[in-house]
Amino acid sequence: MRNPQLNQDGSLQHLLSTEGLPARILRELLDKASTFIDDSSGTPEIRKVPLLAGKSVFNIFFENSTRTRTTFEIAAKRLSADVVNLNIGSSSTSKGETLLDTVDNLCAMHADMFIVRHSQSGAAHLIARHVAPDIHVINAGDGRHAHPTQALLDMYTIRHYKKEFHNLRVAIVGDVLHSRVARSQIHALTTLGVPEVRVIAPKTLLPSHVEKMGVHVYHDMRQGLRDVDAVLMLRLQNERMQGALLPSAQEYFKYYGLTEEKLAYAKPDAIVMHPGPMNRGVEIDSAVADGPRSVILSQVTFGIAVRMAVMSTLIGSKA
Amino acid sequence: MRNPQLNQDGSLQHLLSTEGLPARILRELLDKASTFIDDSSGTPEIRKVPLLAGKSVFNIFFENSTRTRTTFEIAAKRLSADVVNLNIGSSSTSKGETLLDTVDNLCAMHADMFIVRHSQSGAAHLIARHVAPDIHVINAGDGRHAHPTQALLDMYTIRHYKKEFHNLRVAIVGDVLHSRVARSQIHALTTLGVPEVRVIAPKTLLPSHVEKMGVHVYHDMRQGLRDVDAVLMLRLQNERMQGALLPSAQEYFKYYGLTEEKLAYAKPDAIVMHPGPMNRGVEIDSAVADGPRSVILSQVTFGIAVRMAVMSTLIGSKA
Amino acid sequence: MRNPQLNQDGSLQHLLSTEGLPARILRELLDKASTFIDDSSGTPEIRKVPLLAGKSVFNIFFENSTRTRTTFEIAAKRLSADVVNLNIGSSSTSKGETLLDTVDNLCAMHADMFIVRHSQSGAAHLIARHVAPDIHVINAGDGRHAHPTQALLDMYTIRHYKKEFHNLRVAIVGDVLHSRVARSQIHALTTLGVPEVRVIAPKTLLPSHVEKMGVHVYHDMRQGLRDVDAVLMLRLQNERMQGALLPSAQEYFKYYGLTEEKLAYAKPDAIVMHPGPMNRGVEIDSAVADGPRSVILSQVTFGIAVRMAVMSTLIGSKA
Repeated sequence: MRNPQLNQDGSLQHLLSTEGLPARILRELLDKASTFIDDSSGTPEIRKVPLLAGKSVFNIFFENSTRTRTTFEIAAKRLSADVVNLNIGSSSTSKGETLLDTVDNLCAMHADMFIVRHSQSGAAHLIARHVAPDIHVINAGDGRHAHPTQALLDMYTIRHYKKEFHNLRVAIVGDVLHSRVARSQIHALTTLGVPEVRVIAPKTLLPSHVEKMGVHVYHDMRQGLRDVDAVLMLRLQNERMQGALLPSAQEYFKYYGLTEEKLAYAKPDAIVMHPGPMNRGVEIDSAVADGPRSVILSQVTFGIAVRMAVMSTLIGSKA
Repeated sequence: MRNPQLNQDGSLQHLLSTEGLPARILRELLDKASTFIDDSSGTPEIRKVPLLAGKSVFNIFFENSTRTRTTFEIAAKRLSADVVNLNIGSSSTSKGETLLDTVDNLCAMHADMFIVRHSQSGAAHLIARHVAPDIHVINAGDGRHAHPTQALLDMYTIRHYKKEFHNLRVAIVGDVLHSRVARSQIHALTTLGVPEVRVIAPKTLLPSHVEKMGVHVYHDMRQGLRDVDAVLMLRLQNERMQGALLPSAQEYFKYYGLTEEKLAYAKPDAIVMHPGPMNRGVEIDSAVADGPRSVILSQVTFGIAVRMAVMSTLIGSKA
Repeated sequence: MRNPQLNQDGSLQHLLSTEGLPARILRELLDKASTFIDDSSGTPEIRKVPLLAGKSVFNIFFENSTRTRTTFEIAAKRLSADVVNLNIGSSSTSKGETLLDTVDNLCAMHADMFIVRHSQSGAAHLIARHVAPDIHVINAGDGRHAHPTQALLDMYTIRHYKKEFHNLRVAIVGDVLHSRVARSQIHALTTLGVPEVRVIAPKTLLPSHVEKMGVHVYHDMRQGLRDVDAVLMLRLQNERMQGALLPSAQEYFKYYGLTEEKLAYAKPDAIVMHPGPMNRGVEIDSAVADGPRSVILSQVTFGIAVRMAVMSTLIGSKA
């Protein structure tokens, strides 16, 4: 079966998942992102360009996320697109309309691009299969499945600080089981040639057979962090903290919270990343979050450039 | 009394209702809408134009409707206007401010146009009578009273597929009693010269004396649909289904739901329309909604062009 | 300690409070605002200008206020900025993120300006101290502390109708205790040289030691309004009316509601102002609100120009 994200000529039609994307496409997106960043002044600057002038980008969020919606809205406006925000939770689906009827209607309004966030895994794929060939879909997070723009901005950040992927040891730490971010990161890291990807988590927060994704499993932070080049922390969802999977947030922090002491096991120039929003004192200590090895805010800046890269690449492709 | 929608020179100052609008105005709006649609490629394209550049359009929605708000927002942005969305339910009126104080304040911010949705019949008229002469009001649905842009896009759709109005038989099916859409459709159809307008509904969902609006009343679908050129389905509001007016959604579908079997009584080239969002399996069967005679998604596309036509016509008029 | 609103060269870096701002800065802002108003046609017109083209303005509202958010959104769009609205109540802070983490993230997305509304006094100051030097903060209301753009538009309105400040007698009437508007007005009036500022309120609605702000205290409307040039009414919050501070809304209106009878004690050409939204029949009678001495809607119009002046002044300054 052909990858539903690619056109017959191999160009990117939709961005739904980092899974199955060739390394060539990932590298093109990272290269494109770098063109939107002016680094000459020391602080990265992103300027407004007319690449999507006259185009309509619809943020359709079936699951509320002000932060993610905002990053896409800013990226689209920097590309001069018209942006329409739809918080669908409060809209037609609550009137009994089906998801695909909602999508058909938005297509008929001449959308050029949908940014889709949905609590159900596979929602963005379903929509992408359904829309006309001149409409592009970006998955902004679907259930536990994928969050490809987050993974891409993480790859951009790693490449920015480490230059290469082929000589790295990377650790992903935390609630891998429920994390669409972790899945997308693992696919992107292995595709880009990182030779050693580790996951560090308690057994209750790991998917069964996670090793089949090509990662090494650790249950101990000090062992797992030893000599790594990059630490990718995951957010611990609040609902997990009260659930049966974890004894308590304090207990979690003791064993899996990233502190200066644990980070000392990583390489001296290791970088620390987090997709945000952070739970300080739960999965990460403030001394690390605000410390010299944290590149967490750079991730946010690069995220705008990466989303601009994805959008302008999709609009430039022809089905 | 002069029609509050027209200026002394007969030009359109506000669009509040299709009732009382001369056929000349309706035809001008449909003609104008066609200029925004480029049909040359087979799929209709709507392009961005600078007709409202520098103008401020306020979507003031006292009743939530993401779909309708979105169509107006897109239409205004395609005309290059600045759009401000105000969900007034959560705003000043809840602080005890009167409707007209809210309107006065928005006028003082130099709005050029108000798009008004309100649960009370007559709200848009009230606002139109109140604002300064350089401000235009479009009724985006007020109570059970009127929804003129919906009726206009329905007229555009009928003309697109049937070319003329003077030789048509049109049936409106469903909850006419509670429908502002049906009222606006009946006025527009009769004004444009449709010789036979039918309404098909159970007695409990018809206004008393509906015949006085110039329509023929049917309680049986097969009789009512016989030889019609266009079937205009109405949405059955969820609250009606649980109320005393109807036995059940299943029962309603059996008698008044549009199926292929019932549609066979209409002319072979009859078109099927619906204002959305659809209740599949209640007022319309999926086989019909997705079938070859459904023009439901064309209605959405034409709806953008019709709203652009109304906005640009109003801005072009001088009080 | 240097004023946190000013740069070392004395230019305005942030607008957080009218307290401590030199008269020179206040006058510059009022003069700048007048350049956005075209008064030649009798009705003031505000035109779109490209002063903030390519700049990103973030409305970050931790406390909901559609009206205030709208005035800033319109002002920013008239300056051709890209505007992103963030209703933070429903966002990351509810996910446990700290205020400053949220701000850091928005900074990393390359905001040029934050408009901040928060229920906590001092929130805008906290954010202003935290952001990078190329980001400007405008306080759109923080707790009971300050609402400087409201005070500035009030000063603009007074100057528009009275030409000078040095010969005026001004009365502020109502719930001074809970009012950020009153605090900002008092600082602005005294800084601009108004020789006599009065506050009129029951004892329960006055801060202790209010005289130290340089105002004269009155508990009787007829005495307090005698010979004043401008009456600045305050809004009575709904929650006060049910609280222990006041007997009832009716009782309040009897003693402190502005009626024609009480207004007769002011100078014949006195102007009446109110920040909105008004509680008609509570703090102000409709005959006064809609009467010939009310300039309440002019305040709204001038408010757009004043906010454009503040934004363009801040963007023009260099840290």
